[in-house]
Amino acid sequence: MIELFLVGIGMGNPDHLTGRAKTALQNADLIMVPDKGSEKSDLGELRKEICEKLLYPTPKIISFDLPIRDPAEPEYIKRVQDWHNKIATLWSRTINDNLPKGGKVALMIWGDPSLYDSSLRIAEKLKIYITNLEISVIPGITAIQLLTAAHKIPLNDLGESIILSTGRQLRAKGWPLGYDTLVVMLDGQTSFDQLKGNNYKIWWGAFLGMPNEILISGRLDQTSKEIKKIRKVARKKHGWIMDTYLLRKI
Amino acid sequence: MIELFLVGIGMGNPDHLTGRAKTALQNADLIMVPDKGSEKSDLGELRKEICEKLLYPTPKIISFDLPIRDPAEPEYIKRVQDWHNKIATLWSRTINDNLPKGGKVALMIWGDPSLYDSSLRIAEKLKIYITNLEISVIPGITAIQLLTAAHKIPLNDLGESIILSTGRQLRAKGWPLGYDTLVVMLDGQTSFDQLKGNNYKIWWGAFLGMPNEILISGRLDQTSKEIKKIRKVARKKHGWIMDTYLLRKI
Repeated sequence: MIELFLVGIGMGNPDHLTGRAKTALQNADLIMVPDKGSEKSDLGELRKEICEKLLYPTPKIISFDLPIRDPAEPEYIKRVQDWHNKIATLWSRTINDNLPKGGKVALMIWGDPSLYDSSLRIAEKLKIYITNLEISVIPGITAIQLLTAAHKIPLNDLGESIILSTGRQLRAKGWPLGYDTLVVMLDGQTSFDQLKGNNYKIWWGAFLGMPNEILISGRLDQTSKEIKKIRKVARKKHGWIMDTYLLRKI
Repeated sequence: MIELFLVGIGMGNPDHLTGRAKTALQNADLIMVPDKGSEKSDLGELRKEICEKLLYPTPKIISFDLPIRDPAEPEYIKRVQDWHNKIATLWSRTINDNLPKGGKVALMIWGDPSLYDSSLRIAEKLKIYITNLEISVIPGITAIQLLTAAHKIPLNDLGESIILSTGRQLRAKGWPLGYDTLVVMLDGQTSFDQLKGNNYKIWWGAFLGMPNEILISGRLDQTSKEIKKIRKVARKKHGWIMDTYLLRKI
């Protein structure tokens, strides 16, 4: 039997892990760490650093190159699902090569495995290859929680709803009518640019919870230029960037 | 100077705390633990148990009785704000009595301090009484994360938005038009009863991440009776209940 642990690790700081996440990693026979290619190879390194700082002895760690999404496939959902299939095949091969008699495999997931992450969907596809598979999910601190903590603000207005969404959704649909609070994730294109007028406030953050954390907040029309500039510089400097923001109507 | 740490502790299991949360509690000169009156006195006890299990030496812990909201005040926002003012006065008195020369004070917050929690708003009011106050927020695992982890489901449909809301909002406004995923928190009245028809699925959980965790999922019209029954029994048995659920249109 293969036990697969999807372990939420927060945003790169070993201090973000819960006791339960640490135990799950410590007890793993194998930790699989994807390399996202040269641009994001820092992310693979960060995961290995977390293991070295938190775990003793360090379990066996295997890196593998993540396949890329097929840019020739025009349809978003299809493109993502094909990509998930490829990754499931890769996981299956890595697990069979390293644990032919079964055992515990852990994956370290940025943030939380349930929020805008593919691992649970890929794990479902893995059942095709590994019939005796048991999945466990260990929650982790998300970028949203680190963002609101760093800015020292509540996520919700008193008793009000919140929308969690993506840059893609904001670009396609604009501001969600009837709601005052919007969190935007997975946004590589500073989609807040879509919003015009002086009645939005933004709380933006990158590299949250890390020594190089950057925080900017203010009226959107007055800060969007600054955010775009600083984001560009930081991305160039580090080779990658993970950023998130909260918008509120004022 | 008073440094106030709002520390997210997850939902009652010491394993839910992050390394950073543990450090913040360990370094506190004083941990303030509210007693919510007889019905929820278990919750105060649970916090003390977490301290005893995780911290050594255990910092000084002071319990205080939380005031209650004034049922005679008809307006919701006003009722809550009056209550926050009373709590801020109480915090200020407790801090001044115990740390007349300043120091580090920690509050243990269920879930995450930014999500449907009043502590940040009360801490803002505390600045009236303690002028030299510095606030730090430490994220914690929320009931939402424990719910999706326990059910092993993603929070979002692929690339789609999510609404986080309350039982009060669901009762007042019904299903949010244009969205497929709704998380309901702070719902003492099983407000999913508002939703009629056979096109909703529910994932419900209580005492999440604890030994007495209860999970139920299925089509809402086929499971709502069972959830209400089990919820009632569990609430009676424990004297209180904390439950959360995710609804998805099917």
